[in-house]
Amino acid sequence: MNERRLNFWGWGYEDEWPTGQQLSALSEGLRQHIGFGSDELELPVRLDQIELPSPKLKPPTALAKICSSTVYDRVTHAYGKSYRDVIRAFRGRFDHPPDVVAYPSNEREVENLLEWCVDQSAAAIPFGGGTSVVGGVEPAVGDGYAGTVSIDLKRMDQVLDVDSVSQAARIQAGATGPKLEDQLKPHGLNLRHYPQSYEFSTLGGWIATRSAGHFATLNTHIDEFVESLRVLTPEGLWESRRLPASGAGPSPDRLLVGSEGTLGVITESWVRVHARPEYRASSVMHFPDFKSGSRAVREIGQAGLYPANCRLVDPVEAALTGTGGGDRAVLLLSFESADHPVDEWLSVAVERCREHGGTEASNEGYDETGRLLGVEPGADQADSWRDAFLRAPYLRDIMVAMGVVVETFETAVTWDRFEDFHSVVIEAVKQAVVGVCGTGMVTCRLTHVYPDGVAPYFTVLAPAKRGSELEQWREVKEAASEAVLANGGTITHHHAIGRDHRQWYDRQRPQPFAEALAAAKKALDPAWVLNPGVLLDRT
Amino acid sequence: MNERRLNFWGWGYEDEWPTGQQLSALSEGLRQHIGFGSDELELPVRLDQIELPSPKLKPPTALAKICSSTVYDRVTHAYGKSYRDVIRAFRGRFDHPPDVVAYPSNEREVENLLEWCVDQSAAAIPFGGGTSVVGGVEPAVGDGYAGTVSIDLKRMDQVLDVDSVSQAARIQAGATGPKLEDQLKPHGLNLRHYPQSYEFSTLGGWIATRSAGHFATLNTHIDEFVESLRVLTPEGLWESRRLPASGAGPSPDRLLVGSEGTLGVITESWVRVHARPEYRASSVMHFPDFKSGSRAVREIGQAGLYPANCRLVDPVEAALTGTGGGDRAVLLLSFESADHPVDEWLSVAVERCREHGGTEASNEGYDETGRLLGVEPGADQADSWRDAFLRAPYLRDIMVAMGVVVETFETAVTWDRFEDFHSVVIEAVKQAVVGVCGTGMVTCRLTHVYPDGVAPYFTVLAPAKRGSELEQWREVKEAASEAVLANGGTITHHHAIGRDHRQWYDRQRPQPFAEALAAAKKALDPAWVLNPGVLLDRT
Repeated sequence: MNERRLNFWGWGYEDEWPTGQQLSALSEGLRQHIGFGSDELELPVRLDQIELPSPKLKPPTALAKICSSTVYDRVTHAYGKSYRDVIRAFRGRFDHPPDVVAYPSNEREVENLLEWCVDQSAAAIPFGGGTSVVGGVEPAVGDGYAGTVSIDLKRMDQVLDVDSVSQAARIQAGATGPKLEDQLKPHGLNLRHYPQSYEFSTLGGWIATRSAGHFATLNTHIDEFVESLRVLTPEGLWESRRLPASGAGPSPDRLLVGSEGTLGVITESWVRVHARPEYRASSVMHFPDFKSGSRAVREIGQAGLYPANCRLVDPVEAALTGTGGGDRAVLLLSFESADHPVDEWLSVAVERCREHGGTEASNEGYDETGRLLGVEPGADQADSWRDAFLRAPYLRDIMVAMGVVVETFETAVTWDRFEDFHSVVIEAVKQAVVGVCGTGMVTCRLTHVYPDGVAPYFTVLAPAKRGSELEQWREVKEAASEAVLANGGTITHHHAIGRDHRQWYDRQRPQPFAEALAAAKKALDPAWVLNPGVLLDRT
Repeated sequence: MNERRLNFWGWGYEDEWPTGQQLSALSEGLRQHIGFGSDELELPVRLDQIELPSPKLKPPTALAKICSSTVYDRVTHAYGKSYRDVIRAFRGRFDHPPDVVAYPSNEREVENLLEWCVDQSAAAIPFGGGTSVVGGVEPAVGDGYAGTVSIDLKRMDQVLDVDSVSQAARIQAGATGPKLEDQLKPHGLNLRHYPQSYEFSTLGGWIATRSAGHFATLNTHIDEFVESLRVLTPEGLWESRRLPASGAGPSPDRLLVGSEGTLGVITESWVRVHARPEYRASSVMHFPDFKSGSRAVREIGQAGLYPANCRLVDPVEAALTGTGGGDRAVLLLSFESADHPVDEWLSVAVERCREHGGTEASNEGYDETGRLLGVEPGADQADSWRDAFLRAPYLRDIMVAMGVVVETFETAVTWDRFEDFHSVVIEAVKQAVVGVCGTGMVTCRLTHVYPDGVAPYFTVLAPAKRGSELEQWREVKEAASEAVLANGGTITHHHAIGRDHRQWYDRQRPQPFAEALAAAKKALDPAWVLNPGVLLDRT
């Protein structure tokens, strides 16, 4: 298999990191655009400069052929891809590299790996695309383990069955977005779940973390796509029945969805797929301000129209990403269907926008589905939205090299609280940013819409003090998380809990639920080897 | 409070049981309609004929004022309302009456009751409307308990908060359908969750059993309405945060939804409500057969149209209920919206029907939402559908008096299996019915529609052998359940598990999930007092 190598310290493929001249031009463009960031670019550590402690585990002969302890394998499984992760990896700091990285090709091998981990008292960390931005795959497991094993599912990436009648497919957990879409395509089907990590993240990872994707309404989270699951726990196989719906006791699947590798290793799932959309209707609306735009979004969310995209971008972010809204908020609105024209749907939604002061803007700068182009400054506007959207994390890494703090956080909140929530959170985070970075900006967009509330997504950009980025990041993160929690939001709508959100998650969840979940884990994973520290502490 | 008294042996209100002349006329009409049933009507036991063993528990003084051990209270909490329950109660057989029936008015009283039960080793059975058709509230708790306490939530029936901005309301668990709708009405809102038990069943009961209601698509189950929950467990209060959506670990609410009183007593829920529909469009389509109708239903389910009603009735049932389809299958199709006209939605759906041989029938015999009128033979066709739909269980009780076995069962199955499933299940149940009753009929309708599958609802009518009804019922139930399970269905789409579905539920659920659930229960209810035997056996 001739694979493109993944970058060991940052986002995506190694060969995407720009060379000297290109890097300077891109960073100069970014600097002009955001107004800060150093023109002295820091260079990332080279792989040959990295020294890791010797691995504390040695796999038995039977497992040796699927295990690796090379520096490259260990460092690419040491972190996810949060700003905090990249800052550390960029400078060659690897706090908790796994001792062993395993690449099972089938369930038997996963089982054997789990058995070995239990026998050795080694922590086992299920690993999909490694794109966690919340410390979900970092082997920071605390004391009491003989070592850590990262179980990378990448070799289990096949679409095993396609049921075109029910529009469902059985897919292995290690399939990335492009891998599974390529295999569904010949059947005229697709999953249409596009988180920003789509290119690298995997079905199993999406399910474990309750990721959210393309759809602004209805099928926002992967939760809604899951028809059944196959999961290996240390106590045996957990396989649920394929069902379109059921009322037979609490849903088994819903206990696993969001379990973040703590209850078992997801190996397969039947997921609901879709016929390729044939009809689209989209519009870009401008609003005098974010508040009036958000009221239109609420009405659309409560009208039963179910747009595929309904993304409201605030004026600062709209200006930053060059969407041409001037000082106005921009709403990207689109409907799609494999079955029938959706112009009528769009026209009702546009009417609701007009009632809140919205005006129709030119479609220029947006792709045919109404999605924003040109996330990358100076990018060819004819690039597809997907390229731009998916390339954004590469730009984040250039900003790291420029000395810019980049953090995103996201939440969901009911509509009655939303307007206050939005101003209080923005204000609290701005204060923290100014306090710790001197200046900076905080922007917001609404990404997912529900009848009773909305999911706001915030971006923070600020000048870094080199060498103090982790402290700066922590102050911003804490201010954001405290404000979100105090004002009725959830600590995460789709980035998951991992290790970074634990303290706020613990305060958010009902205490009896924490006890029930810990008891459930103990029943499934009595040796407590699966992803320790995520969601729960060992009891 | 001047309450209408509930019938202690059968459905609904005591005063709805028809008097002699009316009863004869109704039963004669039914007999002509279905072609069997005795003209010698058996009469139900009188309350004063019933003797119960003395209660084994005596509440402490502090609780005495909210507790009762009268014969009436004990027998009305001894069973749900399944055919099996009614047969037993009708003849004065009460196998497991609770020793005490408690009527708490607030959470403090619920807490005190749970404490008392734990202290006494008494089983505590949360009780909503008592309309379970699966033995969910029958105090058949097995050995090891000092007695049984039925905790009836009827006094906790208030809408406590209405959030019109988010379209949500905080409602006490004991509110019945009409009670909560009456309180929502002044706000221009409604829940629009109408299970057939709507008039008597409660929000808490719906949540505990994952009931399904009015909507044929999207919001089929109460699961989708729940925004947050307040639940008292023996280990403390479980309260989840109001959120439109979240990705913070496995959903706490989804572990409670469907827990059937085994994990705690639901006392309140924030639920998503709706503005009253202002626009409707409906159509009645006839199909040459059930199969072609089901294919149209599948296309509609996969088209993203989301009809409120999409109910396909097979020719036998259509003839039986007088819907005028002749030997054709009848599809009741309707769209509704509070926001915009939905004619375009309907016309796309009708087009899909035509492609599968559907023809538009007159709307006569249906109400304005396209719902079937005239479930009751001879009923005034101008009655609202709701009256007819909600009155059907009263007719069931007349059939009991006539010596007719009446059983319904329901399931969900993926589309790829549906056509075979339908014929195999019908055939298996028919064989059992003929074997045990000599003759009878099995009909099917599709009640809820999903992109990847459908929920079929079956009705069995057959002549009873008096005195052998319970054995007849058991044979039919077992044949149905075995066929459903063997052919890929769920043992229940919305009737829940209770005690009657346990053996099939145990085979359906993943074994590791059963262990996780038992461990969770043990953590929340260490004395295992909550509804023992439902979902789980004591461990």
